[in-house]
Amino acid sequence: MAKAPPPSPALAPTPTPAPADPLPSWNEGPHKQAILAFVARVTGATNPEFVPESERIAAFDNDGTLWVEQPVYTQLSFAVDRVRELAPAHPEWNKQEPFKSILAGDLKAALAGGDKAILDLIAATHSGMSTDDFAQTVTQWFSNARHPKFGRPYSELVYQPMLELLSFLRANGFKTFIVSGGGIDFMRPVTTRFYGIPPEQVIGTTPKYRYQNVKGKPEIMREPGITLLDDGDGKPVGIQTHIGRRPLAAFGNSDGDEAMLQWTAAGKGPRLAVLVHHTDGAREVAYDRDSKIGKLDKALDEANAKGWVVVSMKDDWKTIFPATKISVPESAPSAPGAR
Amino acid sequence: MAKAPPPSPALAPTPTPAPADPLPSWNEGPHKQAILAFVARVTGATNPEFVPESERIAAFDNDGTLWVEQPVYTQLSFAVDRVRELAPAHPEWNKQEPFKSILAGDLKAALAGGDKAILDLIAATHSGMSTDDFAQTVTQWFSNARHPKFGRPYSELVYQPMLELLSFLRANGFKTFIVSGGGIDFMRPVTTRFYGIPPEQVIGTTPKYRYQNVKGKPEIMREPGITLLDDGDGKPVGIQTHIGRRPLAAFGNSDGDEAMLQWTAAGKGPRLAVLVHHTDGAREVAYDRDSKIGKLDKALDEANAKGWVVVSMKDDWKTIFPATKISVPESAPSAPGAR
Repeated sequence: MAKAPPPSPALAPTPTPAPADPLPSWNEGPHKQAILAFVARVTGATNPEFVPESERIAAFDNDGTLWVEQPVYTQLSFAVDRVRELAPAHPEWNKQEPFKSILAGDLKAALAGGDKAILDLIAATHSGMSTDDFAQTVTQWFSNARHPKFGRPYSELVYQPMLELLSFLRANGFKTFIVSGGGIDFMRPVTTRFYGIPPEQVIGTTPKYRYQNVKGKPEIMREPGITLLDDGDGKPVGIQTHIGRRPLAAFGNSDGDEAMLQWTAAGKGPRLAVLVHHTDGAREVAYDRDSKIGKLDKALDEANAKGWVVVSMKDDWKTIFPATKISVPESAPSAPGAR
Repeated sequence: MAKAPPPSPALAPTPTPAPADPLPSWNEGPHKQAILAFVARVTGATNPEFVPESERIAAFDNDGTLWVEQPVYTQLSFAVDRVRELAPAHPEWNKQEPFKSILAGDLKAALAGGDKAILDLIAATHSGMSTDDFAQTVTQWFSNARHPKFGRPYSELVYQPMLELLSFLRANGFKTFIVSGGGIDFMRPVTTRFYGIPPEQVIGTTPKYRYQNVKGKPEIMREPGITLLDDGDGKPVGIQTHIGRRPLAAFGNSDGDEAMLQWTAAGKGPRLAVLVHHTDGAREVAYDRDSKIGKLDKALDEANAKGWVVVSMKDDWKTIFPATKISVPESAPSAPGAR
């Protein structure tokens, strides 16, 4: 029997150029594929699972999901720096924990006081000023601070693959929100430049505010105490308060994100729940079940049981941090193109 | 001396067609002009007072500013209807105020109990259910309810000139928010269809929420009590909590909006503060200083002293309500084109 002739060159399909990879810092594999496939499912206009743009809400944890959280939460570094700066006006701090240990440079001893130490530290550095003044202080801090381990500005310690994911989702009609245990006004001054997320799409732990109008100068004062602890079960509460509908996709990295992922995944129709697993001790920090910061234990079990996407930073990410430097705003952010 | 020749037709300027009026239901006059001029000031790219789109935040009160509030707040009508519907399961209400009077059809007697009566009424009808169930109840109510005075569905009792203003601002890059003393989850099911404002841009009085996950069914429960009373001094607090920056423009109609207008007007650069004055007893309801609902007294004095724009519904508005009927969504809203 004669061999079949080779296909005529004229009939061979012209190779169409591959579309540009929207997630170039992600290695090929099941996790990248799961994310791309989910977005295709909900955005394909002829797809039975099509979701209108208005319902395309994506919620992102911040510490450990969008920026580094080890060896110490960024906001805690800020608070420590504030204590040093404010100390001259507070001679009593030399005899009072946690301030005494902080001023002696011993953060570990300062935090030995547990939750009370943290609350005292936050109250002393995050309340008693107007929201405008606090935003100015935070903005200035970010423009000067360097990370204790990496020695780089915080603007360079955001995860490049997550920046690509944020852009990819926005390009597909998603509105991106931060839902973080961090202080809401600590993040807002930088989220536009760091992530393209404007202040009104940032949800975080929220202080008591008090409006005052003294001598015709209206101000919003930050008071001690909080109205929302936006962590754990507080994350779905923050989402309901600020967004008023269930996310289509949610991204976290710790047990503090478990409730948010549950709430998201339990919605009708297609939903995407993703955990970032810190597996890369060489390029970042490897930690999960036994970590004090960003502990990932129960949520990892639930993710495995329910088939949530667990991204391995070591295996799934080509790079961790952006190659190019991000400039930090000196003044109030503007958000061209931010959704 | 010879008369100057008439200008050659070829040199006469071709009349350019007037651009379509973006506010056709507003009569010409200083108030319409003030709004148009403000938008031109902040959006003209070569204008020294140009404001980038990201900073173009506009905040609108709801009751009396976007929809009717007389003779009774819409949400109170909802609560009364709920009491009637839930009464068979609550035989104790026959002996207990304010329920007893409500069931007897005497709203005035029911409200004689003052704040406590209102709080008991809201607690009984607005808490103890999941957010999903409450949204469903509200949506259904709006699809059947008729206004006690006008006899029309609430979707037809929104102010046509304000709808035009919302559209005009959005067309000029503004993000429009509701900042209302009304319940946040009472408004959200209808704001997209009524106003083009999606749930995440609705700020209102907010209940305590509690996340629970019983037998793998996550829910957010509405509990008695509130975390934000979004009225008076609470409005700037709500704005800070949800938006995180000061509005460029704010619109209200009562003393409950005074703090929001102060906070807005005191910002740097051009700001717009507007009061809607209910002056039209023929087409709507005329009320201000002595009204129990939507009292406009101190805020009117401050507006006059500071030169805020005071819109007279009688003189400034050609029509009050939309000519065409607005359909009310039966299910979760989607927001094509909503900012």
